[in-house]
Amino acid sequence: MKESLRVSTSKTNEQIADIEKELRYIAGIIKHKGREILNNYPITTPQFIALQFLLEHGDMTLGELSKKINHAFSTTTDLVDRMEKNEIVKRVKDTKDRRVVRIHLLEKGKKIIHEVVEKRQDYLGEVLINVNDEEIGQLSKLLHLLHNEMKYEKEKGKV
Amino acid sequence: MKESLRVSTSKTNEQIADIEKELRYIAGIIKHKGREILNNYPITTPQFIALQFLLEHGDMTLGELSKKINHAFSTTTDLVDRMEKNEIVKRVKDTKDRRVVRIHLLEKGKKIIHEVVEKRQDYLGEVLINVNDEEIGQLSKLLHLLHNEMKYEKEKGKV
Repeated sequence: MKESLRVSTSKTNEQIADIEKELRYIAGIIKHKGREILNNYPITTPQFIALQFLLEHGDMTLGELSKKINHAFSTTTDLVDRMEKNEIVKRVKDTKDRRVVRIHLLEKGKKIIHEVVEKRQDYLGEVLINVNDEEIGQLSKLLHLLHNEMKYEKEKGKV
Repeated sequence: MKESLRVSTSKTNEQIADIEKELRYIAGIIKHKGREILNNYPITTPQFIALQFLLEHGDMTLGELSKKINHAFSTTTDLVDRMEKNEIVKRVKDTKDRRVVRIHLLEKGKKIIHEVVEKRQDYLGEVLINVNDEEIGQLSKLLHLLHNEMKYEKEKGKV
């Protein structure tokens, strides 16, 4: 398996190395910029990541959320406790099965995440100001491709 | 300034939002994968980031390194102390000006960083296995463009 991979990608090994390096630096800059933006908000980076999943996927149980954010159940519990205290999320019981508890995003949490995402978009808008529409379109297309292949690779790893 | 930005990018606001989201998710996956790889090595994520800069730019003073990795001087000192104890880096005095001390990457550190980067490349090679050469080339070109624009934006912010 490993061997056939090496052969089929041998032509582009240098490009893979190059892409890995660029992605590493870009991810680093995004992380730093993200932290800078969060300085003005009462949430931490892991809390932001949890909130973005709650906004995207709706209410989730602690188990579902801890899987999404790749943290241990206990870490996720602490994280949610702090956000609940801060009135950013609340725990709600399922109306049909009251043993099931889900984390629900409150208005304050929604407002924070929308503002933070908007600030990230503003930053990216400024970064891309001199990039033409065709390149913007290509970048968007290729990032979707990369993201999809990453998700596929993750699923494959589970089999 | 802000106003003219809004106007000139208005056509692509949706695409900017889309790119921000994809980059956010991709950066998250890369971070998680990077952590998974580091589990097998005696270094932490901030140590890996410091090592990658030392490998790329050569020996640096504590001040230069702390600026590169965006950490406080005291945090960087602790980080270097731990890596020096672990024989990954060592402090060396400048031969011309013995008051100047630089952090130097040792063989053990070089070996670790090369192995970790190779594992990251292997992962990306597997992710991109079904992506054709033309798309790989475009992706590489556009990531360089994005990275350069990010660097330019950072420099601009300093003026």
